[in-house]
Amino acid sequence: MELSIIKIGGNIIDDETKLAAFLDMFAAVKGKKILVHGGGKLATKVAEGLGIQQQLVDGRRITDAETLKIVTMVYTGTINKGIVAGLQARGCDAIGLSGADGNAILAHKRIHPTLDYGYVGDVDAVNTSLLTSLLFLDRTLVFAPITHDGKGQLLNTNADTIAQEIARGLSATFEVSLVYSFEKSGVLLDAADDRSVIARINPSYYQELKQNQVIFAGMIPKLDNAFAALRSGVGKVIIGRAEELPQLLTGQSGTTIVHE
Amino acid sequence: MELSIIKIGGNIIDDETKLAAFLDMFAAVKGKKILVHGGGKLATKVAEGLGIQQQLVDGRRITDAETLKIVTMVYTGTINKGIVAGLQARGCDAIGLSGADGNAILAHKRIHPTLDYGYVGDVDAVNTSLLTSLLFLDRTLVFAPITHDGKGQLLNTNADTIAQEIARGLSATFEVSLVYSFEKSGVLLDAADDRSVIARINPSYYQELKQNQVIFAGMIPKLDNAFAALRSGVGKVIIGRAEELPQLLTGQSGTTIVHE
Repeated sequence: MELSIIKIGGNIIDDETKLAAFLDMFAAVKGKKILVHGGGKLATKVAEGLGIQQQLVDGRRITDAETLKIVTMVYTGTINKGIVAGLQARGCDAIGLSGADGNAILAHKRIHPTLDYGYVGDVDAVNTSLLTSLLFLDRTLVFAPITHDGKGQLLNTNADTIAQEIARGLSATFEVSLVYSFEKSGVLLDAADDRSVIARINPSYYQELKQNQVIFAGMIPKLDNAFAALRSGVGKVIIGRAEELPQLLTGQSGTTIVHE
Repeated sequence: MELSIIKIGGNIIDDETKLAAFLDMFAAVKGKKILVHGGGKLATKVAEGLGIQQQLVDGRRITDAETLKIVTMVYTGTINKGIVAGLQARGCDAIGLSGADGNAILAHKRIHPTLDYGYVGDVDAVNTSLLTSLLFLDRTLVFAPITHDGKGQLLNTNADTIAQEIARGLSATFEVSLVYSFEKSGVLLDAADDRSVIARINPSYYQELKQNQVIFAGMIPKLDNAFAALRSGVGKVIIGRAEELPQLLTGQSGTTIVHE
């Protein structure tokens, strides 16, 4: 059975018109599906409004206790429930989840030799049994990028990672397509030319592209992650614009990363 | 099969120590259970922090668009996810829901001849099929007092009403005990004496109490509601202190309102 897992980022969430258009397209996607949303700029706005200073260490954002409170309320409250209500209005029976709900995603506070990231979670386990049960109740799942450690601590977690971990976990049961929405049309041969999208990349072509140094260096970690997902059983990974969701799923737009 | 539906209010939610103690007791309740939480003072604090003025018309709070944003993020974000993570830490597999999630509770914007309450919802339907499915997945449900209208609008909804509507809806499938936590020990014969709790009230005793004007007038709407719930199939309604939850459920504390 097919399952589409689609991650959207701040560029869609922050723009009411883009979000409405995306939800129209997402609601129309056939079959079982999961949406993972990132944060966007609202959390920063609320934090500024409340006079909470953003902590930066070595140029990295730190999720201190106050920031965690803000991102929890904005991501699992405002954004998640807004999307869920919007999907319900479009006839898509969505249920919003954080990693704490039903113990859906267990994580631990990031351990780093030199830097304390604060309340940032790295994923340990996805509760595939719960997610499968909910999908078979014909619900569409909408994940906020907040997990928990099982000891009562909520943790701020990267939405790309959540999408990938869910995709890996569910690939034993479903034929998973994992879509990462992106600010460009896909993986480009020429970073300056949005029309130079590579439609399809398999492992041997990827080696060739890397050897010839045609790929923009910033794309390499994303592609390495995509191939890692494929090696864990994910059927295909698609990178492209959220605005072209139907075309991404059919392979008419974006870059599809496949096994062979 | 027995189902306990327990409503807690701001006096528990606003107090970290009381909330932790309550979650210990709630996690230990045997069998299927649902927690409905109210709002508490945090929403007012966040609104003040963000400089959003509370709208009052004829002394009543109005949920305008800005207030709805705040209560949504605080109730479904901060409070709901905090409780869910706290229950997970206590071995209670909880899943947090608003009325929009899975279309759990459908409502409409309150219609009132002279007053516009703003984004306040009156309940139309509880999705008993979803709730029953989730309870049979051995999940404990935690409801935030936010519903939706099915057209994309979230609505602020009274937590007592949500608890009562869920209890009514699920009483066809379960033997429901509905517990309203309260700032007093139960229904009192002497409003000034917290030890004068009436342990048990049935319809004929209620008539007697009302005729003799022994009951504090403020309690009458609560009791009328309790008897209305019983007439809709709810097994019993219990009113008492959240701090005495185990004793409320066994009838050793509080007031139990029954059919006969």
